[in-house]
Amino acid sequence: MQSYLIRKDILNIEAYKPGKPIEEVERELGLKGVVKLASNENPLGPSPKAIKAIQKNLKSLNRYPEGTCSYLKGKLAKALGVKKENLIFGNGSDELIDIILKTIKNPGAEIVTSDTTFVEYKICGEIMGFTVKCVPLRDFTFDLDAIKAAITKNTKVIFIANPNNPTGTYVNAQKVTGFLNDIPKDILVVFDEAYIEFVTEDDFPNLIPLINKKNIAILRTFSKIYGLAGLRIGYMIAQEKFIEYAQRVRQPFNVNSLAQAAAGAALDDKSFVKKTRSCVAKEKKFLYTTFLKFGIWFKKSAANFIFVRMNADTQKVFRKLLEKGVIIREMSQYGLNNYARITVGTRKENLKLIKALEEL
Amino acid sequence: MQSYLIRKDILNIEAYKPGKPIEEVERELGLKGVVKLASNENPLGPSPKAIKAIQKNLKSLNRYPEGTCSYLKGKLAKALGVKKENLIFGNGSDELIDIILKTIKNPGAEIVTSDTTFVEYKICGEIMGFTVKCVPLRDFTFDLDAIKAAITKNTKVIFIANPNNPTGTYVNAQKVTGFLNDIPKDILVVFDEAYIEFVTEDDFPNLIPLINKKNIAILRTFSKIYGLAGLRIGYMIAQEKFIEYAQRVRQPFNVNSLAQAAAGAALDDKSFVKKTRSCVAKEKKFLYTTFLKFGIWFKKSAANFIFVRMNADTQKVFRKLLEKGVIIREMSQYGLNNYARITVGTRKENLKLIKALEEL
Repeated sequence: MQSYLIRKDILNIEAYKPGKPIEEVERELGLKGVVKLASNENPLGPSPKAIKAIQKNLKSLNRYPEGTCSYLKGKLAKALGVKKENLIFGNGSDELIDIILKTIKNPGAEIVTSDTTFVEYKICGEIMGFTVKCVPLRDFTFDLDAIKAAITKNTKVIFIANPNNPTGTYVNAQKVTGFLNDIPKDILVVFDEAYIEFVTEDDFPNLIPLINKKNIAILRTFSKIYGLAGLRIGYMIAQEKFIEYAQRVRQPFNVNSLAQAAAGAALDDKSFVKKTRSCVAKEKKFLYTTFLKFGIWFKKSAANFIFVRMNADTQKVFRKLLEKGVIIREMSQYGLNNYARITVGTRKENLKLIKALEEL
Repeated sequence: MQSYLIRKDILNIEAYKPGKPIEEVERELGLKGVVKLASNENPLGPSPKAIKAIQKNLKSLNRYPEGTCSYLKGKLAKALGVKKENLIFGNGSDELIDIILKTIKNPGAEIVTSDTTFVEYKICGEIMGFTVKCVPLRDFTFDLDAIKAAITKNTKVIFIANPNNPTGTYVNAQKVTGFLNDIPKDILVVFDEAYIEFVTEDDFPNLIPLINKKNIAILRTFSKIYGLAGLRIGYMIAQEKFIEYAQRVRQPFNVNSLAQAAAGAALDDKSFVKKTRSCVAKEKKFLYTTFLKFGIWFKKSAANFIFVRMNADTQKVFRKLLEKGVIIREMSQYGLNNYARITVGTRKENLKLIKALEEL
């Protein structure tokens, strides 16, 4: 295989760097009981109702999944107050980013997003041959004015993570409404709301009523509050017409059977969602207090992770914490060498982090 | 969402039509005990060892999957006698088709395949903006001479399903070797070997030793012999360099945790594989004998399904069998209105099919 067969866009792409898995760290460093606060996962495990639903469906794994996620779609549509035709499911939200970009026409097309946000918008965009413009954040928050200013006649898609990953900040309802009124109607604005279930702030936008009025798409996931990151299932809410086109580029069996069953059951698991939400809220406050005590700067977060500035090179801090059995996410891939993203864990996990930080 | 935002290729694409799920047929027709012989699934269920492995991994579903499938990759590499660097996993082989096409450069690029084969080569190709040339089969078998004749300077990829789905025929080792020697070296030839584990014919090509000598890629799956269609996991074997590029376009967490665990365990489930293979061989012969008795023309198959010609419009036969609780796959999407594809089932399932056919 010579590189002349390879698409030029691909030759320059760097692959996504995931957080280190617990097993890998334990194996590499000969440690036990390693704590992972690196991937914004649910610290309480998966939804117990989801686990039960999986067990019920194991016998028929020889069968292909139901391709349209029909049962789950009906249930979710009801819960959200939208039509089934407004929904499409993906192998995680990652796949939905790819589906969106495959759907949108692309010769010369541009994407606008931020330079410090979920990197898959940029990576998927480049893979699909888009020009990706990344504008700086303002006070670690999506700068909608800067995004507006970056729009050209070639801009087809804008990605806004709200709350933003990795900074935990959000753009409020008023700003979003103004932004949507100001920009050209033919641009699709994708709001990635992976962490919306953790948000408690009153001025956070409720975009679902805008679905049929504006050219927007909302991404959500079962990976976070429902604790199903390992199963891969996310969804998009958008106009019927756009969903119809997106369905054409979706692979026929993109969402596995167990993910469908688990997600359906997790939606009913109100007590697990409540427990997770209150655990994260309480532990976030506990970490804020501790960081203040330690003189660690942080940004207040609307999500289940905290963006912090260390008084040292975080690549070094990252490595030292790793040796003590705590995995966090350092931010050097964004050029932010003094910053890290720390997922809110259980009290036990957070205490292990704090102890490790104290020892440094 | 107006269609002006949609890529032109997408406006003309028809979505893949999957086989009807059992639950859907039972619900629609008010039936019980419906038999599905439509999707070439394993009639014996999933590998029992795989189920056990899944159960062990349920607790950590809140964690993201290990992105590179490292453990499974090591195990499979050993089993196949290749290097880990020759392997990449996908959310089913479907995703690997997409990954291949994303990797290969595409302005003006062409794909050559057959007009009666797995439709995803064509659908994925069109989604990615390739021109897809589909040449006729010859005696229901991939016609390598016709494919050779269809090659132009723009041809980048050739897809050959071997054995072919839906006809069950195969191209033998001698023909494949000759073909690979004859065609330009810069074309990637993808052999989809989804059904290879069912093949008993001696002259079936063994392509793994050619991996580093020819510009080929092999697709395989855990959906068929291992009975894991519901979990979505397939793999590609190819040159290290090509795999390296393919890894760049792969989504970071494309294969779910349970699929990785299940596939690893299924590889060890030698007795299940043996049982499936002997069941399919025995039942295939039983169906051949019955079809001969009924005067139903069929093509001898190297896989776990049989391509048959009915003495009637198979859309009608399909519908009538459905009412009797048997799902088969009619072939009108290929313009083959008198043909059907029937998956080899258990004896009980096959008897239900035969009884239903008798009644027609």
